[in-house]
Amino acid sequence: MATDALLYWVGMAAVAVCALTGVLDSRRKQMDLVGALLVGVATALGGGTVRDLLLDRNVFWVADQTYLIVAVFTGFLTFFIARRYDIPPRLFLIPDAVGLALFTVAGTQAALLWHAPWLVASLMGVITGVFGGILRDILCNDVPMVFLKGELYASAAWLGAMTLIGALALNLSPLVSTWAALVVTLLIRLAAIRYAITLPAWRSQSD
Amino acid sequence: MATDALLYWVGMAAVAVCALTGVLDSRRKQMDLVGALLVGVATALGGGTVRDLLLDRNVFWVADQTYLIVAVFTGFLTFFIARRYDIPPRLFLIPDAVGLALFTVAGTQAALLWHAPWLVASLMGVITGVFGGILRDILCNDVPMVFLKGELYASAAWLGAMTLIGALALNLSPLVSTWAALVVTLLIRLAAIRYAITLPAWRSQSD
Amino acid sequence: MATDALLYWVGMAAVAVCALTGVLDSRRKQMDLVGALLVGVATALGGGTVRDLLLDRNVFWVADQTYLIVAVFTGFLTFFIARRYDIPPRLFLIPDAVGLALFTVAGTQAALLWHAPWLVASLMGVITGVFGGILRDILCNDVPMVFLKGELYASAAWLGAMTLIGALALNLSPLVSTWAALVVTLLIRLAAIRYAITLPAWRSQSD
Repeated sequence: MATDALLYWVGMAAVAVCALTGVLDSRRKQMDLVGALLVGVATALGGGTVRDLLLDRNVFWVADQTYLIVAVFTGFLTFFIARRYDIPPRLFLIPDAVGLALFTVAGTQAALLWHAPWLVASLMGVITGVFGGILRDILCNDVPMVFLKGELYASAAWLGAMTLIGALALNLSPLVSTWAALVVTLLIRLAAIRYAITLPAWRSQSD
Repeated sequence: MATDALLYWVGMAAVAVCALTGVLDSRRKQMDLVGALLVGVATALGGGTVRDLLLDRNVFWVADQTYLIVAVFTGFLTFFIARRYDIPPRLFLIPDAVGLALFTVAGTQAALLWHAPWLVASLMGVITGVFGGILRDILCNDVPMVFLKGELYASAAWLGAMTLIGALALNLSPLVSTWAALVVTLLIRLAAIRYAITLPAWRSQSD
Repeated sequence: MATDALLYWVGMAAVAVCALTGVLDSRRKQMDLVGALLVGVATALGGGTVRDLLLDRNVFWVADQTYLIVAVFTGFLTFFIARRYDIPPRLFLIPDAVGLALFTVAGTQAALLWHAPWLVASLMGVITGVFGGILRDILCNDVPMVFLKGELYASAAWLGAMTLIGALALNLSPLVSTWAALVVTLLIRLAAIRYAITLPAWRSQSD
């Protein structure tokens, strides 16, 4: 019970953080208030929406509009604050990593509850974690950042999802498995930023 | 009954108008007939499709293929006429505003019938009204026009959706509420074009 | 039975081919391993996913994760082979045409089983055949190749879908109709490549 309530509010915090980063990102493209808000909402709710559509569940923010209210309100606030003050995006690397971990774990859990096979469940976790950002970049007409050569992001999410699935398969309690998965995702992502850990990538054409 | 039939045919007209504007827009990108038709169909049916997926309803044009036939046929005609004659896009600002109003009101009503909470219902109205155009711009590899600084568009739709929700909450009859919402959306959009009413936007980086 | 098993494995082969072409395509954009894999998976599974969402069916790869495993495994292999050796994309024009034919026919059949009206069923076939490639191009931030002036592609798929629908309407056996549709799609696509058959397109603005 207490864990459920905790996860609910922590998920809400992740929605707020993603709405914020989405709105800040829209700055690159001379959008107006509505454009910024829609990009923020899509960033915050996009990953979970795609997961729910793929699993044929009720879309989470249609059933509980608190998510939508939090996303719109945060976006609004961010827009007017960021118009006045300069917010360095680096400030949000850690909240964004927390959001990634939370969304990934919540997405994997939802898929497992739906009896999705393990590889599908881990992909659902990754999709929930990263698709909001992919949508944000598509709407801003950029190549999605997560696809490009850079510090581990989707792979951190995938390892976190696999931690959850593995821990549950080893009969660890849901509470312990959840925390393990959150910590693994977060640590890998933060270590990747700190030590510039990257995956193999296509070589540049000019090599 | 008569209102239902009226709304049905008016919705069909909105589909035709959006197919037309979608096909005209594909001109910027050297597309061929199939590309133009697919962009036209996506513009005409995209908003309602996303709404139906999010609400877990049957997708409207899968259930009734008249919509698809109208979209394809209009797109076809537009392609061959526009290859021969120059059609100034300004000609379609008013039909497009009518389409926006119709799609928004139809989308909001569908969401309310589904017992969506009010903020969700208003967003469904906006999505139905503007997502076809967003899809068109994504398929043409542009930043969606509705996001950029410009005359009120999505905000006109949102105010229209809120008019419908407010009027129904005040126990006005569905017929009166519907007309009020259509008129509000249309007037705000046309006034915004006429008087160049815009929302606050990000300041340009060079300011 | 035997036909079902054949179609199943042939569909699996189409998934592998599309994952391969998706991964190769990601090369243009300096993506890393995860980016390439996600683009490959989206190319392989995107068309069928959109069809299943529109028809409100269970998404095929969520129900049977073999598809996902094949897509990921093929993508993985392709990435490491293509990093070392130069693979000319022309090599895959024929497998890609086979994939197009298979996906189109499988998509049309699925829609007919769902009692979709004929025009909708044919569009579902086309969507299943081409949407993976559209998604790949959107994720790579390009105008979708199928929309641009070029050899018949979506139109080959549509004619194949119509062949299936027509043959079934003439009471030909499902087996014969399926093969006829596969052959028609494949022949039109290959003939279009060989003889550079194109559709009418927008004239270039400079004409």
